[in-house]
Amino acid sequence: STVKIGLIPADGIGREVIPAARRVLESLNSGPKFEFVDLEAGFELFQKTGTSLPQETIDILKNECNGALFGAVSSPSHKVAGYSSPIVALRKHLDLYANVRPVKSVNSPAFPNQKLLDMLIIRENTECLYIKSEREEVDSKTGLRVAWADRKISEYASRRIGTMAFNMALTRQKLRSEIPVEKRFWQHNPRVTIVHKSNVLSVTDGLWRETVRAVKENNAELYKGVDMEEQLVDSMVYRMFREPEAFDVVVAPNLYGDIISDGAAALVGSLGVVPSANVGDSFVMGEPVHGSAPDIAGKGIANPIASIRSAGMLLEHMGYTSQALKIYNAVDAVMADASILTPDLGGKSSTTEVTEAVLKNLRT
Amino acid sequence: STVKIGLIPADGIGREVIPAARRVLESLNSGPKFEFVDLEAGFELFQKTGTSLPQETIDILKNECNGALFGAVSSPSHKVAGYSSPIVALRKHLDLYANVRPVKSVNSPAFPNQKLLDMLIIRENTECLYIKSEREEVDSKTGLRVAWADRKISEYASRRIGTMAFNMALTRQKLRSEIPVEKRFWQHNPRVTIVHKSNVLSVTDGLWRETVRAVKENNAELYKGVDMEEQLVDSMVYRMFREPEAFDVVVAPNLYGDIISDGAAALVGSLGVVPSANVGDSFVMGEPVHGSAPDIAGKGIANPIASIRSAGMLLEHMGYTSQALKIYNAVDAVMADASILTPDLGGKSSTTEVTEAVLKNLRT
Ligand SMILES: CC(C)[C@H](C(=O)O)[C@@H](O)C(=O)O
Ligand SMILES: CC(C)[C@H](C(=O)O)[C@@H](O)C(=O)O
Repeated sequence: STVKIGLIPADGIGREVIPAARRVLESLNSGPKFEFVDLEAGFELFQKTGTSLPQETIDILKNECNGALFGAVSSPSHKVAGYSSPIVALRKHLDLYANVRPVKSVNSPAFPNQKLLDMLIIRENTECLYIKSEREEVDSKTGLRVAWADRKISEYASRRIGTMAFNMALTRQKLRSEIPVEKRFWQHNPRVTIVHKSNVLSVTDGLWRETVRAVKENNAELYKGVDMEEQLVDSMVYRMFREPEAFDVVVAPNLYGDIISDGAAALVGSLGVVPSANVGDSFVMGEPVHGSAPDIAGKGIANPIASIRSAGMLLEHMGYTSQALKIYNAVDAVMADASILTPDLGGKSSTTEVTEAVLKNLRT
Repeated sequence: STVKIGLIPADGIGREVIPAARRVLESLNSGPKFEFVDLEAGFELFQKTGTSLPQETIDILKNECNGALFGAVSSPSHKVAGYSSPIVALRKHLDLYANVRPVKSVNSPAFPNQKLLDMLIIRENTECLYIKSEREEVDSKTGLRVAWADRKISEYASRRIGTMAFNMALTRQKLRSEIPVEKRFWQHNPRVTIVHKSNVLSVTDGLWRETVRAVKENNAELYKGVDMEEQLVDSMVYRMFREPEAFDVVVAPNLYGDIISDGAAALVGSLGVVPSANVGDSFVMGEPVHGSAPDIAGKGIANPIASIRSAGMLLEHMGYTSQALKIYNAVDAVMADASILTPDLGGKSSTTEVTEAVLKNLRT
C-alpha cells in the first residue's frame, strides 16, 4: 500500500532534521510505500507572507495525506500582531487529540550516571489553556490592563485521553513481554499516573481527575492489571527528577504535559532525542519535542534522533509496528555505541553522520 | 521591640517542623523579642469542624500579628464538597503578593554529585489560575460536563512582582559582595529570568512579559547592572535541570512558579530543605515548600530545615538581616557537616536531633 506523508519542516533546525527522518522512512525495505509532499508553515513563513499556516497546507494534509512530520517552530522574541503558533492550530484542525511522548533512556557509555527510565507521557492536545481564548481589558478605576484566559477541561476530551492512557499501558505491557526481563527498565505492573492540580483547581482538574479515574473504574475487568496513581503537577516534576524510574504511563492535561515532557527530556541526554506523535482517530503527525534551536540552525549539527524516532512513531500509530521497532532499535544501537553522536549528546558528529549511522544499522 | 508571630502548623509534618522553627527563633540572643500565638487551619481541621480556615485565625493574623509561620496542608484524596485550600486563601486575605523561594545548594559530602546553584524563584502569589474562578456546565447536545477556569494576569500585579524581582537581584548582589569570591556560586552580573508561555498565551503571558520587561526598561539607570532574559516555561524546566547554575533571580506567574520551585528543590537534596516567604507590603508568612507528607507524619523524622530557613526568611523580610543570616549559616553548617541529617537527605537523625544541631551552631 502507499501512504502519503506531509513534510512540514517549518523553522530553524526543523529544515535539517525532517529531511533526515525522510531518508530513514525511504530506506525501509518492508511496510508501506511512501509518497512525500513538502508543505509550508512556521514563523519564518509568517514573516515573509503574513500567515504562519497557509490554508493549502491544511487542505493537503486533510484531503491527501495519511500522516505528517512536523519539524519545529520559532517563537517571536517580541509580541507580533497577527501571529499564532501553527503547531497548536494544526493539532486542532486535524483533531489530533493526544500528544504521545515516550521518554526512554538508552544504556550507553555516553550517559554514565543516568537513571534507566521508560516512561510514556500522554498529553491532552486540544484544550486546557491551549484553546487560546484570551482577552484584555482596561480597569476603569486604575487605567491599568488586565488580561484573561479561559482554561477548558471537558469530560469528553478527558475520557478519550484517559482511555488512550490505559490502553497504551496494556500495549506497552504486551510489547515489553517480548524483550528479555533483564533488559526491561520497567519491572512492575503497568501503571497510569494521573497528573493534576485539583487541590487548587477543584472544578476543572477535579473533572479531569474524576473522568480519567472513571475510565478504569468503569472498565474494571479490562484494566484490572493496570495500577492507577495520582500526582499533583508540582510534586510530579519533583518526583520525576528524584525517581523517574517510578513512572510508566503518565497522563496529563495539555499545559502540564508540555512542561513535564520537556522536563523528562532532561533525564535522557537531551531534548534532541525525544520524539512525539500527535495522534487522532484517523491521522498521525510525528513531531520532535525540541524547538527550532535558532542558535545552532544551519550548522549541520542538529540531532536528528528525535525526528527519526518521530517517524517511527508515525509508523507505530499507523499500525506498522514492526517497521517502527526497526527504527527504534537502529536508533538505540547508535546511541548505545555512542561513537557517532551530535554535540548535544557530547559527540562531535553531524546531523548527516548520525543519520547515516542509523541507516547503516537499519540495513544490518 | 516585640514581634508577634502566628504559628499555623496545619496538617501532617507541619505539626513537627513548625515547633522546631519556633525553638530556633526563641534561641536567638539578639533581634526582636518574640511572642507566639497558636492558630488553627488545615484539612484535618476541616474534617473535624467543616472549615479549613477559621475567621479567628484570619482576624488574629491581621489585627495582632507582625508575621506568621505556616506548616503544610494535606490535599484530600477525593473531591470534598466545601473544602478549599487555606494556604491559598491566606495569601489572598493578607495580600501576600510574592512567594519568594530561594533554592541554594550547600557544598557537602552528603551530596557528592550536585551542581552548585544559588537561585531565587519569585512566584507571583495572587492571581493566574489561583484566583479559583471556576464553573462547570453540561453540554446540552452531548449531556457531558465541561469545566472552565479563568486565568487572570494584571499589569498591576505583574509590575509589583517584577519590581520585586529586579530589586532582589540588586540586594543579592550586595549580600554576595560580602562573601569571598571563591565561595560564591553565582559569579556573573545579577540576572532576572522572566518565565512565560507567550508563544501560546499571547494575551495573558504577553501582558506579563511586557510588564516585567518594562520594569527594567522604565528604570534603566537603576537596573542597568541587572541582565534580563526570558525563558518559556517548558524550556525553563528543561534548562533548570541541565544547567541550574545559569539562574540567579527567576520570576514567574503563580502556577509556573509553583511547578518550577518544586522542580528546583529536587536539585538541592530534598524538598525538605527549601523554604519560602509569602511577602506583602506589611506582613510576611514563612512557609516550607514541602507538603504535609502523610507517609512520614508522626514519626519524628521530618526534616525541619525548610521550616527553620523559613523562619530565617521571616526575619529577613521583616528587616532583621543579621539574625536571618545567623540562622542560614547555622543550617548550612549542619548540612555541610552532614553527620546529623534526616532520612530524606540520606541521614539517620530525627527532627529533634537536627533542630538541636542547628541550635548548637547558633550558639557558637
Ligand atoms: C511551540 C509550542 C507552541 C509547543 C507547545 O507548547 O505545545 C511546543 O512547546 C511543544 O511542546 O510542542
Ligand atoms: C498546597 C498548594 C495549594 C500550594 C500551592 O500550589 O501553592 C503548594 O503546592 C505550595 O507550593 O505552597
